[in-house]
Amino acid sequence: MYSFRNDYSEGAHEKILSKLSESSLVQAGGYGEDSNCEMARQVIKQKIGRSDVDVHFIPGGTQTNLIAMSAFLRPHEAVVSAATGHIEVHETGAIEATGHKIISIETADGKLSPELLQPALLFHDGEHMVKPRMVYISDTTELGTTYTKAQIEQLSQYCKQNDLLLFLDGARLGSALCTADCDITLSDVANNTDAFYISGTKNGALFGEALVICNDALKADFRYHMKQKGGLLAKGSVLGLQFLALFEDDLFFELARHANEMAAVLRAGVAKAGFSFMSDSTSNQLFPIFPNWLVEKLREQYDFLVIKAIDEEHSCVRLVTSWATERQAAADFIDSLNKLSPA
Amino acid sequence: MYSFRNDYSEGAHEKILSKLSESSLVQAGGYGEDSNCEMARQVIKQKIGRSDVDVHFIPGGTQTNLIAMSAFLRPHEAVVSAATGHIEVHETGAIEATGHKIISIETADGKLSPELLQPALLFHDGEHMVKPRMVYISDTTELGTTYTKAQIEQLSQYCKQNDLLLFLDGARLGSALCTADCDITLSDVANNTDAFYISGTKNGALFGEALVICNDALKADFRYHMKQKGGLLAKGSVLGLQFLALFEDDLFFELARHANEMAAVLRAGVAKAGFSFMSDSTSNQLFPIFPNWLVEKLREQYDFLVIKAIDEEHSCVRLVTSWATERQAAADFIDSLNKLSPA
Amino acid sequence: MYSFRNDYSEGAHEKILSKLSESSLVQAGGYGEDSNCEMARQVIKQKIGRSDVDVHFIPGGTQTNLIAMSAFLRPHEAVVSAATGHIEVHETGAIEATGHKIISIETADGKLSPELLQPALLFHDGEHMVKPRMVYISDTTELGTTYTKAQIEQLSQYCKQNDLLLFLDGARLGSALCTADCDITLSDVANNTDAFYISGTKNGALFGEALVICNDALKADFRYHMKQKGGLLAKGSVLGLQFLALFEDDLFFELARHANEMAAVLRAGVAKAGFSFMSDSTSNQLFPIFPNWLVEKLREQYDFLVIKAIDEEHSCVRLVTSWATERQAAADFIDSLNKLSPA
Amino acid sequence: MYSFRNDYSEGAHEKILSKLSESSLVQAGGYGEDSNCEMARQVIKQKIGRSDVDVHFIPGGTQTNLIAMSAFLRPHEAVVSAATGHIEVHETGAIEATGHKIISIETADGKLSPELLQPALLFHDGEHMVKPRMVYISDTTELGTTYTKAQIEQLSQYCKQNDLLLFLDGARLGSALCTADCDITLSDVANNTDAFYISGTKNGALFGEALVICNDALKADFRYHMKQKGGLLAKGSVLGLQFLALFEDDLFFELARHANEMAAVLRAGVAKAGFSFMSDSTSNQLFPIFPNWLVEKLREQYDFLVIKAIDEEHSCVRLVTSWATERQAAADFIDSLNKLSPA
Repeated sequence: MYSFRNDYSEGAHEKILSKLSESSLVQAGGYGEDSNCEMARQVIKQKIGRSDVDVHFIPGGTQTNLIAMSAFLRPHEAVVSAATGHIEVHETGAIEATGHKIISIETADGKLSPELLQPALLFHDGEHMVKPRMVYISDTTELGTTYTKAQIEQLSQYCKQNDLLLFLDGARLGSALCTADCDITLSDVANNTDAFYISGTKNGALFGEALVICNDALKADFRYHMKQKGGLLAKGSVLGLQFLALFEDDLFFELARHANEMAAVLRAGVAKAGFSFMSDSTSNQLFPIFPNWLVEKLREQYDFLVIKAIDEEHSCVRLVTSWATERQAAADFIDSLNKLSPA
Repeated sequence: MYSFRNDYSEGAHEKILSKLSESSLVQAGGYGEDSNCEMARQVIKQKIGRSDVDVHFIPGGTQTNLIAMSAFLRPHEAVVSAATGHIEVHETGAIEATGHKIISIETADGKLSPELLQPALLFHDGEHMVKPRMVYISDTTELGTTYTKAQIEQLSQYCKQNDLLLFLDGARLGSALCTADCDITLSDVANNTDAFYISGTKNGALFGEALVICNDALKADFRYHMKQKGGLLAKGSVLGLQFLALFEDDLFFELARHANEMAAVLRAGVAKAGFSFMSDSTSNQLFPIFPNWLVEKLREQYDFLVIKAIDEEHSCVRLVTSWATERQAAADFIDSLNKLSPA
Repeated sequence: MYSFRNDYSEGAHEKILSKLSESSLVQAGGYGEDSNCEMARQVIKQKIGRSDVDVHFIPGGTQTNLIAMSAFLRPHEAVVSAATGHIEVHETGAIEATGHKIISIETADGKLSPELLQPALLFHDGEHMVKPRMVYISDTTELGTTYTKAQIEQLSQYCKQNDLLLFLDGARLGSALCTADCDITLSDVANNTDAFYISGTKNGALFGEALVICNDALKADFRYHMKQKGGLLAKGSVLGLQFLALFEDDLFFELARHANEMAAVLRAGVAKAGFSFMSDSTSNQLFPIFPNWLVEKLREQYDFLVIKAIDEEHSCVRLVTSWATERQAAADFIDSLNKLSPA
Repeated sequence: MYSFRNDYSEGAHEKILSKLSESSLVQAGGYGEDSNCEMARQVIKQKIGRSDVDVHFIPGGTQTNLIAMSAFLRPHEAVVSAATGHIEVHETGAIEATGHKIISIETADGKLSPELLQPALLFHDGEHMVKPRMVYISDTTELGTTYTKAQIEQLSQYCKQNDLLLFLDGARLGSALCTADCDITLSDVANNTDAFYISGTKNGALFGEALVICNDALKADFRYHMKQKGGLLAKGSVLGLQFLALFEDDLFFELARHANEMAAVLRAGVAKAGFSFMSDSTSNQLFPIFPNWLVEKLREQYDFLVIKAIDEEHSCVRLVTSWATERQAAADFIDSLNKLSPA
């Protein structure tokens, strides 16, 4: 059964696996202090266009979030997140387990803005409440939406004015940067956030995230935090090699574009078949709303998540494409849809 | 420069890499709920000879330790460790960061025993002190020594009598089980501990540890703890595939035996050259004591750790062999030694 | 300037101070293991009508909440609270600082019910989310409202059916039990919750809360948790003596009734003057809605909190009475109100 | 049975109780923001001779330690303590529960020095280990010994040179400052530490500690940390009034001198009777070594702690005097001793 359940169903791209195989018997330093990691850091800095950022490789996304927040926040400081934010909903309290409250804000589309942040800042007033100190955003969001350059600059400016750190969860940053209507680059992300991460896991790597710390004040002793939380991989070069493969020839962007194209195929087909969407996504996740009987029929042939009931007779489902999604599979899905629900 | 610094300098064994390549485009379920993980669990259970244990795959060793202790202990409960224990010395306070005190016990050889534990139990008396609840041992220990079957059974019995959990850190369990004088098996480990882990990272895998929970009372909800601490890998099958490769044909033991053999070559050569050792290790780590001038000369040709000064003129160094250590490299080291320090 | 800001503006009732003075030079055991604490525990158990509960004395309310939740919950378990709950809003992330997420639920009146809890239980599904394990309610609530016997029994039954612990924050339990329309007793509270606390701080004591643990499964080792979190007072008898004074002659109820009566004077006067209230409180907190110009005028003569803007021209304020509120002061407030805002 | 078990067996000095009674019906601001707290802060600053320190009142000593360390340390930073330090032994892992490791150092007399600290600093090298960041000392120590001015200045200088914070636990600072051979003042303590606390609990108050933060860098947002850990007392003026009573007429020093005098009576009598001591204390704790039969006989008449076995036939006991110890009781104890063990 073909799966559109997520973008981590397949292993790694062959270029990554080749690099791992070629280097397998070459001795390398441990814990990310080898030449492969160093080269990967350099190439990422080049893509960003800044040599003054710190780049750390960490096995997973939840781990990256929790290490960063544990390192960057003092005990009484809180992080503000959309109510749909991954840290708020789907990390089993990982941030709270490091001692920090998440201030949750309802949004229409998974995106935060100065207008949405302002009431939370006003509400948190004085020492009987946590102190909002970091804003957490995801790009793409958990609803597949993306930030424009103007939006991210406004957020950045607002955060600076209010002594807030801005952290961007880039679990699907590849897809975000490669949507058809995207007007931001890796440089823009770096220049408007205090820290962000670039996910390898969801864009062709076996595993691994590259955390980029842009704010000098957050850099000191970061590797202590990585080690303490179990995020300093012994064979760090396994992460370095993968990110080298992803960025030395722009494989990262190529893979993300493929995922987005496959999503576009699905999106067009779903729309043409007359269905609407819960969110206005142009990235590799789409959220069509189907009648429940159709959901049941489709699940006999395809694996995907049912997100929530829209009304008694309709549900929103999530379809996700990846770097490895087969063009034929996308076409087949639309065929199935059209057969099951003829216009 | 050839490195005897550790057993994670090389990547992964070719059988592991092949398996990853072959499966790379096959879609698999996420988070360890795929068929590869399931097969790997089955084969590990067979090797252990018990179907009633739970097996979880976790990216790294520090992570495995901290997830297990956070899950198994209540807030006021402490873990007892040798003063040389990895959790006590080399995990940047990972266990304390989950809220638990480590009670440290001085040992001669890195090994705990009922005799060494007894004073700590007597000392901790009542609610103004932490409550000792878990005993943490490593096999091999951080000094390369190993437990005999009798020793591990005595510890197990003592723990049961005193309402203590016994946890075994198996970062180098492969080497321990394959020493020439070893009289324990995986079954013995499982039957005498409440939980233990089998390291892939230090025995031929790219990364990954297999945590085995033997005590029924510790099993519930464990995957929640894995997720919360960032230890539930999205592409879990990458871990499953590696452990399948390690255990389906006893590759795990074959690789560990090779590491031990290479250590034996070094050990025999060092002893023949007239040097003594800080610990009585028969595993893949050895701790020779060299004059400082010799240490300096050897470091020009080889990479290894200097552990500590023994006196003003001598230091203990650590030599570690791995599944990938070249026979020629071991022979060369002894040649160099003999040339630098003729008998 | 007379204060209706809170119910902890004054020191302690004279009977409490007398008891402290009388006992001052009598040597007592430390840490709550003295005869005064023991007597206080006995009298509280008698009032509750159960000898099988554990009673612990703890200096403050936030401390009591955080110790209880840290002791009662495993790391991945969360507590569900009304969005207005004290732990959610006004404890500076105390619960999260012990590692636990609070699941926040919007309510109309600060009260939880099975209907409000059900969606949260359905939403939290599986190991990528925290596991709801405790329901936290306050009686009186932070909006001054109270639970009926039927409501608390329904909650209790629902919690039992769903494997949830029910914890009641009794910061103002005295007032709750002494409202005119109250149909619950201390026994009812004990019989329907797993644990609750009775506040001395807000009902005539210098400081101190009595935590009552009703569920046997939660009792073990509780004093370890108290000590670890700094809640085991060295001179524990100071707490025991105060609770003895409060309960041996029903002073606790007498003081709470006085506070409620003074609130009733204010409530009647405010209503008669033609103003409405934000919540339907019959306890010692009331939440009238005044025009902003009137709020400003009243603040020249009285100290009280402005809770929030209702619209551009009106605000909700909070008036709180205590065991020590002077009848004349309440009358004066209504006089002032009538003069400032003649009907 | 008369107790020499500790210095918190009695309630509070009558001057303190009077102040509490007099103020009982006067309304005061909450959470330490009232005029009594402000006056108490001023008088303490005068005694210290510095207006630039911050003074916070906190209910208990363990609480003060854990709030300070949680606030002052980042997650990877550790505190260094004597192996006998209260935080290391008798606080049920309170510091570890906030996430921080304690590095324990064996001492002869409970006191730390640059010589004892140096090896610990050298040992902790790099990101696989915690980072020593704070030195914790107690004065008097847990063995009743005290620091000289020269010793505390050397420690202070060493800490500054090594980027370490110096924290002094003043649970018995009153006694330390009033020993016959003391050459330090409150000013010296403030000028040589980054923070310290002055205990009221063990010197005549019902409860309460005054934390003094001397280092500007540690001051920001401290009240948030107090609230989060449950250490911001609602009726803060109850603490302020007590410290006002203790310091406005030097009652604090008067009470400490009395305790020390009573200890001197015991010390002289014990020595004259021919017994030796485990530590060289001149403060209100003494640690005589008695034959076990004598310990048993004395325990029939007096309450005190047996600290540990010295050999098979002798034990060390702890005798503690307080502000309230009766002169007759001390004399009686020596009489009993002489009768039981005639010279």
